[in-house]
Amino acid sequence: MPEFRQNQASKEWVILAPGRGGRPSDFRKNRPKPGGMPPYKSDCPFCKGNDKHIVTPILTYPSEGDWQVRVVPNKYAALRSDTGPEREHVGGFLKANGFGIAEVVIEHPLHNRTIGTMSVPEVVRVLRAYRQRQIDISKNEKINLVMIFRNHGERAGTSLEHPHSQIIATPIVPPHIRYPIDQAVLHYDKYGTCVFCDMLAEELKQKSRIVIESAHFVAFCPFAARSPFETRIYPRRHMASYVSISDEEIEDLAKVLRTIMGKLYIGLHNPDYNYIIRSSPIGDEDTRYLHWYFIIIPKVTISAGFEIGSGIFINVTPPEESAEYLRQVEDPGAPL
Amino acid sequence: MPEFRQNQASKEWVILAPGRGGRPSDFRKNRPKPGGMPPYKSDCPFCKGNDKHIVTPILTYPSEGDWQVRVVPNKYAALRSDTGPEREHVGGFLKANGFGIAEVVIEHPLHNRTIGTMSVPEVVRVLRAYRQRQIDISKNEKINLVMIFRNHGERAGTSLEHPHSQIIATPIVPPHIRYPIDQAVLHYDKYGTCVFCDMLAEELKQKSRIVIESAHFVAFCPFAARSPFETRIYPRRHMASYVSISDEEIEDLAKVLRTIMGKLYIGLHNPDYNYIIRSSPIGDEDTRYLHWYFIIIPKVTISAGFEIGSGIFINVTPPEESAEYLRQVEDPGAPL
Repeated sequence: MPEFRQNQASKEWVILAPGRGGRPSDFRKNRPKPGGMPPYKSDCPFCKGNDKHIVTPILTYPSEGDWQVRVVPNKYAALRSDTGPEREHVGGFLKANGFGIAEVVIEHPLHNRTIGTMSVPEVVRVLRAYRQRQIDISKNEKINLVMIFRNHGERAGTSLEHPHSQIIATPIVPPHIRYPIDQAVLHYDKYGTCVFCDMLAEELKQKSRIVIESAHFVAFCPFAARSPFETRIYPRRHMASYVSISDEEIEDLAKVLRTIMGKLYIGLHNPDYNYIIRSSPIGDEDTRYLHWYFIIIPKVTISAGFEIGSGIFINVTPPEESAEYLRQVEDPGAPL
Repeated sequence: MPEFRQNQASKEWVILAPGRGGRPSDFRKNRPKPGGMPPYKSDCPFCKGNDKHIVTPILTYPSEGDWQVRVVPNKYAALRSDTGPEREHVGGFLKANGFGIAEVVIEHPLHNRTIGTMSVPEVVRVLRAYRQRQIDISKNEKINLVMIFRNHGERAGTSLEHPHSQIIATPIVPPHIRYPIDQAVLHYDKYGTCVFCDMLAEELKQKSRIVIESAHFVAFCPFAARSPFETRIYPRRHMASYVSISDEEIEDLAKVLRTIMGKLYIGLHNPDYNYIIRSSPIGDEDTRYLHWYFIIIPKVTISAGFEIGSGIFINVTPPEESAEYLRQVEDPGAPL
């Protein structure tokens, strides 16, 4: 029996429609086992040895000796930092210069690593690089939003195999971000609590969608998951922005993130996916009504006209089943 | 130089980032020329001759003799009409029965037709079927929204080749629909005008994004197009709902829609696409602040983490270039 479910924070709805070919194991069966990739490719711009074009990285870990992680300007940036954020009318329409910051986080010197197959210390370095860049970019008074995300595989929008994430920072906080914030404020004003803290407490109480718990984090397939295997990682501690994560929490998050990505890698045969860190706009880091989190979306289904038109996603795999499947996938340990 | 542009109605932003491989002709070059499909396939459930499983179509045109268009219940419906729309709490979360209506519009008895290659009278029948079903479904007091859409090709979410559209009607008006309505109300209260009428007037004034004009409709690539070749068809007359379209307007729309779909078929080599009729929720058909329209989205690019996270779409082809390209594609005439 299908059902509608509402995301408590955004108020968006999904339709759970099981029985339409959405058994978790189906998604694995339809994909070839991941094959070994070479650790080095001569035509990869990010592989160690081919990277002489990177004259001045923005950030390098470790700061001396052979690099393990580095952040570089995005050569194919959609936005430019050498202009301003001024907005102007074109007749009745509004536009702004394409001002913003676009960077690439090269996560590993080797070509054949991905978050799910890295060691925990390697993931720690990536998460630290995210935090450092978000802190530094947030000092730019013309920037209002920093988005950190990872596209893995062609269906997720990248054809570049080398392990990397991206950062795009914009002067604009768009409605897509603002509307859920407005809802979180309404919730805070009504109940006096962070709606995300409440969602996490409810998920922990209902238990069936939890995949992993750690000291500081909980990974779960949310009640109103929009697609099979959508997984979120929420910090237990209330924090509106990723800039506030502590070193201890990063160590803990690295284990949880690596395990989830490892389970997806094994359980779905290296699926294409996007992950995104949702974090408050700049200036709202200390607010009591927002909560940062990871959202991980394996690209195993396609949004069609109904989803585009209504924003209601039809999810053929109940999150309870996705979570159960991911719990059972053997943790490959780190590193593979 | 990239730029941000705002959709005047929804207030969402896009980034236009030309120079990243988005020349209109590139999208054609990357696709094979459409090959001839057979007019009949023995394993297609909608081809004439294989359709004995359809015992009682909901609607048939013409009503007697050989059918040309018929509407049938969706055998793989995501929603069910034999339940109610009641909502209930599950702990802190909200859910509802999967109540709704899901139908398929079989647009043509032949397998190898699509809107862009049909004759105008054939498209007229499809558009009349849409209207009739929207009118009839709107009488159901438990339904609040009727979505009519078409998924064409695997990247657009369908693997069924036979020409068809879908109708999904829900008891819920989701935030994705409600937020732009709220914006339209604010615009109406501020300016006393329909924001969509204003957008259309501005597009007509700026001219560069217009593809076709007819007596009753204007087809254009909008100022804040989210992807290459996104095209909208607005009625010139203010109408909030597709149920209000007249017979004369349907005749005119069929020519415009067929020509646009024909130009896309020729100009982009039969691209996968979604189209959607955006129309007011039930009960708001006469409102002065909404306006129904067609939105056509060829699936030539992929939404990645940034788009999913921010709702800001990066469009590599300025709509002025998409419109110029579509204007120049020779109208194949009807039928092909």
